[in-house]
Amino acid sequence: MAAEELVGQLAPDPALSPAEQLRSGIETFVAYVAHHPAMYLAVVRFSKSGNDLGTLHRTVRSTLGEWLLTGLAGAGMPMTPAVTLSVSGWLAFMEETVLSWLDQPQMTRVELVGLCERAVYQLLAGALDDPQQWQEIRTAIERRP
Amino acid sequence: MAAEELVGQLAPDPALSPAEQLRSGIETFVAYVAHHPAMYLAVVRFSKSGNDLGTLHRTVRSTLGEWLLTGLAGAGMPMTPAVTLSVSGWLAFMEETVLSWLDQPQMTRVELVGLCERAVYQLLAGALDDPQQWQEIRTAIERRP
Repeated sequence: MAAEELVGQLAPDPALSPAEQLRSGIETFVAYVAHHPAMYLAVVRFSKSGNDLGTLHRTVRSTLGEWLLTGLAGAGMPMTPAVTLSVSGWLAFMEETVLSWLDQPQMTRVELVGLCERAVYQLLAGALDDPQQWQEIRTAIERRP
Repeated sequence: MAAEELVGQLAPDPALSPAEQLRSGIETFVAYVAHHPAMYLAVVRFSKSGNDLGTLHRTVRSTLGEWLLTGLAGAGMPMTPAVTLSVSGWLAFMEETVLSWLDQPQMTRVELVGLCERAVYQLLAGALDDPQQWQEIRTAIERRP
């Protein structure tokens, strides 16, 4: 199924830094949606909790969330409730902005990727609430293994 | 209907500053959801595009989004595609964090409100991409009419 293919494409490359994995994941996600808009709209808009599309939608989201949290934990990010909630919230933010952009593409795909990328760092910085600690983690996120 | 009651409760008080309206709106939204979790879960999780719950869900979201954009425009925020997308994305962020919090309430309601409030300002600052302009708008947002 096409959305399982998406999860496969989104699997993080362990040779990259968490920041590169994240950027690449956002690019792949947006490119996939841009090429399969009907598929994506069906999954998000027509999914209900009880049906297969709903299960698929939640699987994609939770898989992405776990990869992101794993990368962040590896960079020293504390796994507080504020951080895990912010990651869930950011995934919803990205889905919604991509859906709105499909309806009204008022910026380029590169600009949309940049907006989603800036958003995740802003939300994480705010979830941490200690600018000094965030600077250290931000540096670690850029480091390749 | 209960969700129309919510929209009524969320109507901004014109005597307040945009920042106070926003804070009050988040508090009302989170308090409402905490008191009517089954109703809220039904609206969000079981809504499909074609049915009444889906229409209701989109109406609540777009009403909130319009009020927020009106307050921001009044404070001098430019209505760029990045700003309007960020507002849509933030509403999805808030819905998702409130849903996750209902499932696993690992922070207080006041902390959740604070997380959502910080998130909207961080996302708006990033959508603007000019720290100096953002400082001026942030000051205007605090100003009562």
